Amino acid sequence: MKKIITISREFGSGGRELGKKLAEKMNFKFYDKEKLSFLIQKYGYDARYIDSIDKIGNDDFPFRIGNSFMLYSVHQKQATELLVLEQKLIKELASKNNCVFVGRGADLILKEFDPLNIFVFADDASKIERCKQNARENENLTDKQILKQIKNIDKSRQKHYLLLGSDSWGQRENYDVCLNASRFEIDDLVSVVEGLANEFFQGE
Amino acid sequence: MKKIITISREFGSGGRELGKKLAEKMNFKFYDKEKLSFLIQKYGYDARYIDSIDKIGNDDFPFRIGNSFMLYSVHQKQATELLVLEQKLIKELASKNNCVFVGRGADLILKEFDPLNIFVFADDASKIERCKQNARENENLTDKQILKQIKNIDKSRQKHYLLLGSDSWGQRENYDVCLNASRFEIDDLVSVVEGLANEFFQGE
Repeated sequence: MKKIITISREFGSGGRELGKKLAEKMNFKFYDKEKLSFLIQKYGYDARYIDSIDKIGNDDFPFRIGNSFMLYSVHQKQATELLVLEQKLIKELASKNNCVFVGRGADLILKEFDPLNIFVFADDASKIERCKQNARENENLTDKQILKQIKNIDKSRQKHYLLLGSDSWGQRENYDVCLNASRFEIDDLVSVVEGLANEFFQGE
Repeated sequence: MKKIITISREFGSGGRELGKKLAEKMNFKFYDKEKLSFLIQKYGYDARYIDSIDKIGNDDFPFRIGNSFMLYSVHQKQATELLVLEQKLIKELASKNNCVFVGRGADLILKEFDPLNIFVFADDASKIERCKQNARENENLTDKQILKQIKNIDKSRQKHYLLLGSDSWGQRENYDVCLNASRFEIDDLVSVVEGLANEFFQGE
Protein backbone atom coordinates (compact mmCIF):
# COMPACT_ATOMS: atom_id res chain seq x y z
CA MET A 1 0.00 0.00 0.00
CA LYS A 2 1.27 3.44 -0.91
CA LYS A 3 1.75 6.09 1.77
CA ILE A 4 -0.94 8.73 1.43
CA ILE A 5 -1.26 12.04 3.25
CA THR A 6 -4.35 14.18 2.85
CA ILE A 7 -4.46 17.83 3.85
CA SER A 8 -7.74 19.66 4.25
CA ARG A 9 -7.52 23.31 5.14
CA GLU A 10 -9.26 26.58 5.66
CA PHE A 11 -8.64 29.04 2.86
CA GLY A 12 -5.68 31.26 3.71
CA SER A 13 -4.33 29.02 6.46
CA GLY A 14 -1.24 27.93 4.56
CA GLY A 15 -2.34 24.31 4.32
CA ARG A 16 -1.63 24.12 0.62
CA GLU A 17 1.90 25.46 1.06
CA LEU A 18 2.43 22.98 3.87
CA GLY A 19 1.30 20.13 1.63
CA LYS A 20 3.51 21.19 -1.26
CA LYS A 21 6.61 21.56 0.88
CA LEU A 22 5.88 18.34 2.72
CA ALA A 23 5.61 16.47 -0.58
CA GLU A 24 8.92 17.94 -1.72
CA LYS A 25 10.64 17.06 1.55
CA MET A 26 9.29 13.51 1.66
CA ASN A 27 9.65 12.96 -2.08
CA PHE A 28 5.92 12.27 -2.42
CA LYS A 29 3.80 13.26 -5.42
CA PHE A 30 1.72 16.38 -4.82
CA TYR A 31 -1.85 16.85 -6.04
CA ASP A 32 -4.29 19.65 -5.43
CA LYS A 33 -7.41 20.92 -7.16
CA GLU A 34 -5.56 22.76 -9.88
CA LYS A 35 -3.35 19.81 -10.76
CA LEU A 36 -6.23 17.38 -10.81
CA SER A 37 -8.31 19.73 -12.96
CA PHE A 38 -5.39 20.19 -15.30
CA LEU A 39 -4.91 16.46 -15.67
CA ILE A 40 -8.58 15.87 -16.37
CA GLN A 41 -8.88 18.75 -18.81
CA LYS A 42 -5.75 17.87 -20.69
CA TYR A 43 -6.13 14.12 -20.89
CA GLY A 44 -9.65 13.33 -19.82
CA TYR A 45 -9.73 10.42 -17.52
CA ASP A 46 -8.26 7.40 -19.15
CA ALA A 47 -6.19 4.79 -17.38
CA ARG A 48 -3.78 4.76 -20.32
CA TYR A 49 -2.76 8.30 -19.46
CA ILE A 50 -2.08 7.74 -15.79
CA ASP A 51 1.43 6.52 -16.47
CA SER A 52 2.31 9.62 -18.46
CA ILE A 53 0.65 11.82 -15.85
CA ASP A 54 2.71 10.04 -13.31
CA LYS A 55 5.93 11.17 -14.93
CA ILE A 56 5.03 14.84 -14.61
CA GLY A 57 7.05 16.41 -11.82
CA ASN A 58 5.67 18.53 -9.03
CA ASP A 59 6.67 21.76 -10.75
CA ASP A 60 5.78 21.04 -14.36
CA PHE A 61 2.32 22.57 -14.26
CA PRO A 62 2.03 25.59 -16.47
CA PHE A 63 -0.51 27.67 -14.62
CA ARG A 64 -0.19 29.89 -11.63
CA ILE A 65 -0.98 28.05 -8.42
CA GLY A 66 -1.81 30.31 -5.57
CA ASN A 67 -4.33 31.86 -3.32
CA SER A 68 -6.04 33.93 -5.98
CA PHE A 69 -9.76 34.28 -5.64
CA MET A 70 -10.12 34.67 -9.42
CA LEU A 71 -8.42 31.36 -10.12
CA TYR A 72 -10.63 29.71 -7.59
CA SER A 73 -13.89 30.99 -9.01
CA VAL A 74 -13.01 29.88 -12.55
CA HIS A 75 -12.35 26.36 -11.34
CA GLN A 76 -15.35 26.41 -9.06
CA LYS A 77 -17.66 26.39 -12.09
CA GLN A 78 -16.21 23.12 -13.22
CA ALA A 79 -16.43 21.45 -9.84
CA THR A 80 -19.62 19.50 -10.30
CA GLU A 81 -18.80 17.95 -13.64
CA LEU A 82 -15.31 17.07 -12.50
CA LEU A 83 -16.42 15.36 -9.32
CA VAL A 84 -16.80 11.81 -10.55
CA LEU A 85 -13.78 11.88 -12.82
CA GLU A 86 -11.75 13.43 -10.06
CA GLN A 87 -12.60 10.71 -7.56
CA LYS A 88 -11.51 8.02 -10.01
CA LEU A 89 -8.33 9.91 -10.79
CA ILE A 90 -7.49 10.45 -7.11
CA LYS A 91 -7.82 6.74 -6.38
CA GLU A 92 -5.79 5.81 -9.42
CA LEU A 93 -2.98 8.20 -8.51
CA ALA A 94 -2.98 7.04 -4.88
CA SER A 95 -2.56 3.45 -6.01
CA LYS A 96 0.58 4.32 -7.98
CA ASN A 97 2.73 6.51 -5.74
CA ASN A 98 3.19 7.91 -2.26
CA CYS A 99 1.17 11.12 -2.47
CA VAL A 100 0.13 14.25 -0.66
CA PHE A 101 -3.38 15.36 -1.68
CA VAL A 102 -4.53 18.83 -0.73
CA GLY A 103 -8.29 19.31 -0.58
CA ARG A 104 -10.91 17.65 -2.81
CA GLY A 105 -12.18 15.51 0.06
CA ALA A 106 -9.31 13.10 -0.55
CA ASP A 107 -9.57 12.01 3.09
CA LEU A 108 -13.06 10.68 2.33
CA ILE A 109 -12.29 9.37 -1.14
CA LEU A 110 -9.18 7.48 -0.03
CA LYS A 111 -10.46 5.91 3.19
CA GLU A 112 -9.50 2.44 1.92
CA PHE A 113 -5.89 3.66 1.55
CA ASP A 114 -5.73 4.42 5.28
CA PRO A 115 -4.22 7.89 4.79
CA LEU A 116 -2.77 10.22 7.38
CA ASN A 117 -5.40 12.95 7.52
CA ILE A 118 -4.44 16.50 8.44
CA PHE A 119 -6.54 19.63 8.83
CA VAL A 120 -4.87 23.05 8.78
CA PHE A 121 -6.62 26.13 10.05
CA ALA A 122 -5.74 29.58 11.39
CA ASP A 123 -7.32 32.57 13.04
CA ASP A 124 -8.92 35.24 10.87
CA ALA A 125 -6.09 37.76 11.25
CA SER A 126 -3.51 35.24 10.05
CA LYS A 127 -5.63 34.18 7.10
CA ILE A 128 -6.28 37.76 6.01
CA GLU A 129 -2.56 38.52 6.25
CA ARG A 130 -1.67 35.46 4.17
CA CYS A 131 -4.26 36.37 1.52
CA LYS A 132 -2.80 39.86 1.29
CA GLN A 133 0.71 38.49 0.85
CA ASN A 134 -0.49 36.21 -1.95
CA ALA A 135 -2.83 38.70 -3.61
CA ARG A 136 -2.48 39.68 -7.24
CA GLU A 137 -1.49 43.26 -7.86
CA ASN A 138 -5.00 44.33 -8.81
CA GLU A 139 -6.64 42.73 -5.80
CA ASN A 140 -7.34 45.69 -3.57
CA LEU A 141 -9.76 44.20 -1.09
CA THR A 142 -10.46 45.41 2.41
CA ASP A 143 -9.92 43.03 5.33
CA LYS A 144 -13.67 42.65 5.60
CA GLN A 145 -13.98 41.76 1.92
CA ILE A 146 -11.12 39.27 2.16
CA LEU A 147 -12.68 37.62 5.20
CA LYS A 148 -16.00 37.35 3.39
CA GLN A 149 -14.26 35.65 0.46
CA ILE A 150 -12.48 33.29 2.83
CA LYS A 151 -15.74 32.30 4.50
CA ASN A 152 -17.42 31.79 1.13
CA ILE A 153 -14.66 29.56 -0.15
CA ASP A 154 -14.66 27.52 3.05
CA LYS A 155 -18.43 27.17 2.69
CA SER A 156 -17.97 25.80 -0.81
CA ARG A 157 -15.44 23.33 0.59
CA GLN A 158 -18.01 22.21 3.10
CA LYS A 159 -20.48 21.78 0.25
CA HIS A 160 -17.99 19.73 -1.72
CA TYR A 161 -17.52 17.53 1.33
CA LEU A 162 -21.31 17.20 1.55
CA LEU A 163 -21.40 16.02 -2.06
CA LEU A 164 -18.98 13.30 -1.05
CA GLY A 165 -21.32 12.20 1.73
CA SER A 166 -20.08 13.90 4.91
CA ASP A 167 -21.34 16.96 6.72
CA SER A 168 -18.34 17.26 8.98
CA TRP A 169 -15.65 19.11 7.07
CA GLY A 170 -13.18 20.61 9.53
CA GLN A 171 -14.46 18.67 12.54
CA ARG A 172 -11.48 17.39 14.43
CA GLU A 173 -12.81 13.86 14.78
CA ASN A 174 -12.23 13.34 11.03
CA TYR A 175 -8.51 14.00 11.19
CA ASP A 176 -5.39 12.57 12.80
CA VAL A 177 -4.14 16.04 13.52
CA CYS A 178 -5.54 19.55 13.31
CA LEU A 179 -2.89 22.23 13.08
CA ASN A 180 -3.50 25.85 13.94
CA ALA A 181 -0.99 27.65 11.73
CA SER A 182 -1.57 31.06 13.34
CA ARG A 183 1.50 30.99 15.55
CA PHE A 184 3.87 28.98 13.34
CA GLU A 185 5.84 29.44 10.17
CA ILE A 186 4.69 26.93 7.56
CA ASP A 187 8.31 25.84 7.04
CA ASP A 188 8.52 24.88 10.72
CA LEU A 189 5.33 22.86 10.53
CA VAL A 190 6.66 20.89 7.57
CA SER A 191 9.30 19.12 9.66
CA VAL A 192 6.80 18.49 12.47
CA VAL A 193 4.30 16.90 10.09
CA GLU A 194 7.10 14.91 8.46
CA GLY A 195 7.91 13.52 11.92
CA LEU A 196 4.27 12.65 12.49
CA ALA A 197 4.05 10.99 9.08
CA ASN A 198 7.16 8.93 9.75
CA GLU A 199 5.63 7.66 13.00
CA PHE A 200 2.35 6.97 11.24
CA PHE A 201 3.88 5.01 8.38
CA GLN A 202 6.65 3.31 10.36
CA GLY A 203 4.83 -0.01 10.57
CA GLU A 204 4.32 -0.19 6.82
CA MET B 1 9.19 34.13 30.22
CA LYS B 2 9.06 30.43 31.03
CA LYS B 3 8.09 27.90 28.38
CA ILE B 4 4.64 26.55 29.13
CA ILE B 5 2.79 23.68 27.45
CA THR B 6 -0.83 22.95 28.29
CA ILE B 7 -2.51 19.68 27.41
CA SER B 8 -6.27 19.33 27.47
CA ARG B 9 -7.64 15.93 26.66
CA GLU B 10 -10.59 13.62 26.46
CA PHE B 11 -10.65 11.06 29.23
CA GLY B 12 -8.97 7.86 28.07
CA SER B 13 -7.19 9.45 25.11
CA GLY B 14 -3.72 9.16 26.58
CA GLY B 15 -3.23 12.91 26.85
CA ARG B 16 -2.04 12.69 30.43
CA GLU B 17 0.56 10.07 29.59
CA LEU B 18 1.68 12.21 26.67
CA GLY B 19 2.08 15.21 28.96
CA LYS B 20 4.03 13.28 31.57
CA LYS B 21 6.43 11.75 29.07
CA LEU B 22 6.81 15.05 27.25
CA ALA B 23 7.73 16.78 30.52
CA GLU B 24 10.30 14.09 31.26
CA LYS B 25 11.78 14.29 27.78
CA MET B 26 11.98 18.08 27.74
CA ASN B 27 12.99 18.34 31.38
CA PHE B 28 9.93 20.45 32.18
CA LYS B 29 8.00 20.32 35.45
CA PHE B 30 4.78 18.32 35.20
CA TYR B 31 1.51 19.27 36.88
CA ASP B 32 -1.91 17.72 36.66
CA LYS B 33 -5.04 17.76 38.79
CA GLU B 34 -3.74 15.26 41.31
CA LYS B 35 -0.44 17.05 41.83
CA LEU B 36 -2.08 20.43 42.16
CA SER B 37 -4.64 19.07 44.62
CA PHE B 38 -1.87 17.42 46.61
CA LEU B 39 0.12 20.63 46.80
CA ILE B 40 -2.88 22.63 47.93
CA GLN B 41 -4.00 20.05 50.47
CA LYS B 42 -0.55 19.57 51.90
CA TYR B 43 0.62 23.12 52.01
CA GLY B 44 -2.37 25.29 51.39
CA TYR B 45 -1.57 28.08 49.05
CA ASP B 46 1.19 30.21 50.41
CA ALA B 47 3.89 31.78 48.31
CA ARG B 48 6.47 30.78 50.94
CA TYR B 49 5.86 27.17 50.06
CA ILE B 50 6.21 27.47 46.33
CA ASP B 51 9.98 27.15 46.53
CA SER B 52 9.78 23.91 48.46
CA ILE B 53 7.04 22.62 46.15
CA ASP B 54 9.30 23.51 43.33
CA LYS B 55 11.97 21.13 44.58
CA ILE B 56 9.64 18.14 44.47
CA GLY B 57 10.49 15.94 41.50
CA ASN B 58 8.03 14.65 38.95
CA ASP B 59 7.82 11.26 40.65
CA ASP B 60 7.77 12.17 44.32
CA PHE B 61 4.01 12.18 44.70
CA PRO B 62 2.75 9.48 47.02
CA PHE B 63 -0.60 8.61 45.51
CA ARG B 64 -1.52 6.53 42.54
CA ILE B 65 -1.88 8.61 39.40
CA GLY B 66 -3.90 6.95 36.74
CA ASN B 67 -7.09 6.59 34.87
CA SER B 68 -9.12 5.30 37.78
CA PHE B 69 -12.70 6.48 37.93
CA MET B 70 -12.68 6.17 41.74
CA LEU B 71 -9.73 8.50 42.13
CA TYR B 72 -11.39 10.96 39.84
CA SER B 73 -14.68 11.09 41.69
CA VAL B 74 -13.01 11.65 45.08
CA HIS B 75 -11.13 14.63 43.71
CA GLN B 76 -14.13 15.86 41.80
CA LYS B 77 -15.86 16.71 45.07
CA GLN B 78 -13.10 19.10 45.95
CA ALA B 79 -13.05 20.80 42.59
CA THR B 80 -15.11 23.85 43.39
CA GLU B 81 -13.34 24.84 46.56
CA LEU B 82 -9.95 24.30 44.97
CA LEU B 83 -10.68 26.37 41.93
CA VAL B 84 -9.45 29.77 43.09
CA LEU B 85 -6.45 28.42 44.97
CA GLU B 86 -5.59 26.28 42.01
CA GLN B 87 -5.59 29.17 39.57
CA LYS B 88 -3.21 31.14 41.78
CA LEU B 89 -0.99 28.12 42.21
CA ILE B 90 -0.91 27.37 38.47
CA LYS B 91 0.18 30.93 37.69
CA GLU B 92 2.80 30.88 40.43
CA LEU B 93 4.26 27.59 39.22
CA ALA B 94 4.27 28.76 35.60
CA SER B 95 6.22 31.84 36.57
CA LYS B 96 8.98 29.74 38.16
CA ASN B 97 9.75 26.92 35.71
CA ASN B 98 9.18 25.55 32.26
CA CYS B 99 6.08 23.41 32.79
CA VAL B 100 3.66 21.00 31.23
CA PHE B 101 0.16 21.36 32.68
CA VAL B 102 -2.41 18.68 32.00
CA GLY B 103 -6.02 19.74 32.33
CA ARG B 104 -7.45 22.24 34.84
CA GLY B 105 -8.10 24.80 32.11
CA ALA B 106 -4.46 25.84 32.27
CA ASP B 107 -4.72 27.04 28.66
CA LEU B 108 -7.26 29.64 29.82
CA ILE B 109 -5.59 30.44 33.13
CA LEU B 110 -2.16 30.95 31.57
CA LYS B 111 -3.09 33.00 28.50
CA GLU B 112 -0.69 35.74 29.54
CA PHE B 113 2.16 33.18 29.50
CA ASP B 114 1.53 32.51 25.80
CA PRO B 115 1.58 28.73 26.20
CA LEU B 116 1.63 26.07 23.50
CA ASN B 117 -1.87 24.62 23.76
CA ILE B 118 -2.54 21.01 22.83
CA PHE B 119 -5.75 18.99 22.77
CA VAL B 120 -5.59 15.19 22.71
CA PHE B 121 -8.58 13.10 21.75
CA ALA B 122 -9.33 9.63 20.41
CA ASP B 123 -12.17 7.56 19.05
CA ASP B 124 -14.42 5.69 21.48
CA ALA B 125 -12.90 2.27 20.82
CA SER B 126 -9.39 3.51 21.61
CA LYS B 127 -10.51 5.27 24.77
CA ILE B 128 -12.39 2.23 26.03
CA GLU B 129 -9.37 0.04 25.35
CA ARG B 130 -7.06 2.42 27.21
CA CYS B 131 -9.43 2.57 30.19
CA LYS B 132 -9.47 -1.21 30.33
CA GLN B 133 -5.69 -1.37 30.30
CA ASN B 134 -5.50 1.12 33.15
CA ALA B 135 -8.41 -0.25 35.17
CA ARG B 136 -8.01 -1.37 38.75
CA GLU B 137 -8.48 -5.07 39.33
CA ASN B 138 -11.95 -4.66 40.77
CA GLU B 139 -13.19 -2.47 37.95
CA ASN B 140 -15.30 -4.83 35.91
CA LEU B 141 -17.21 -2.45 33.72
CA THR B 142 -18.79 -3.19 30.36
CA ASP B 143 -17.73 -1.17 27.34
CA LYS B 144 -21.02 0.69 27.54
CA GLN B 145 -20.46 1.55 31.20
CA ILE B 146 -16.90 2.69 30.52
CA LEU B 147 -18.05 4.88 27.66
CA LYS B 148 -20.72 6.43 29.85
CA GLN B 149 -18.10 7.21 32.51
CA ILE B 150 -15.83 8.71 29.86
CA LYS B 151 -18.61 10.97 28.58
CA ASN B 152 -19.50 12.01 32.14
CA ILE B 153 -15.94 12.92 32.99
CA ASP B 154 -15.53 14.87 29.76
CA LYS B 155 -18.76 16.69 30.59
CA SER B 156 -17.36 17.66 33.97
CA ARG B 157 -14.24 18.95 32.19
CA GLN B 158 -16.45 21.07 29.99
CA LYS B 159 -18.16 22.38 33.12
CA HIS B 160 -14.84 23.21 34.71
CA TYR B 161 -13.92 25.11 31.56
CA LEU B 162 -17.24 26.93 31.81
CA LEU B 163 -16.41 27.97 35.37
CA LEU B 164 -13.24 29.51 33.98
CA GLY B 165 -15.27 31.53 31.50
CA SER B 166 -15.24 29.57 28.24
CA ASP B 167 -17.83 27.31 26.68
CA SER B 168 -15.52 25.89 24.06
CA TRP B 169 -13.58 23.07 25.67
CA GLY B 170 -12.26 20.78 22.96
CA GLN B 171 -13.02 23.13 20.09
CA ARG B 172 -10.04 23.16 17.81
CA GLU B 173 -9.88 26.95 17.53
CA ASN B 174 -8.67 27.08 21.16
CA TYR B 175 -5.57 25.00 20.55
CA ASP B 176 -2.39 25.11 18.51
CA VAL B 177 -2.72 21.45 17.74
CA CYS B 178 -5.38 18.77 18.21
CA LEU B 179 -4.01 15.25 18.17
CA ASN B 180 -6.12 12.22 17.50
CA ALA B 181 -4.28 9.49 19.42
CA SER B 182 -6.37 6.64 17.99
CA ARG B 183 -3.83 5.54 15.41
CA PHE B 184 -0.61 6.38 17.24
CA GLU B 185 1.40 5.09 20.16
CA ILE B 186 1.68 7.78 22.82
CA ASP B 187 5.47 7.32 22.85
CA ASP B 188 5.57 8.20 19.15
CA LEU B 189 3.52 11.33 19.68
CA VAL B 190 5.90 12.52 22.41
CA SER B 191 8.72 13.14 19.96
CA VAL B 192 6.36 14.79 17.46
CA VAL B 193 5.04 17.19 20.10
CA GLU B 194 8.56 17.85 21.30
CA GLY B 195 9.42 18.88 17.73
CA LEU B 196 6.40 21.17 17.61
CA ALA B 197 7.29 22.69 20.98
CA ASN B 198 10.85 23.33 19.85
CA GLU B 199 9.55 25.20 16.79
CA PHE B 200 7.08 27.10 18.94
CA PHE B 201 9.62 28.22 21.52
CA GLN B 202 12.56 28.72 19.15
CA GLY B 203 12.21 32.50 19.09
CA GLU B 204 12.30 32.77 22.86
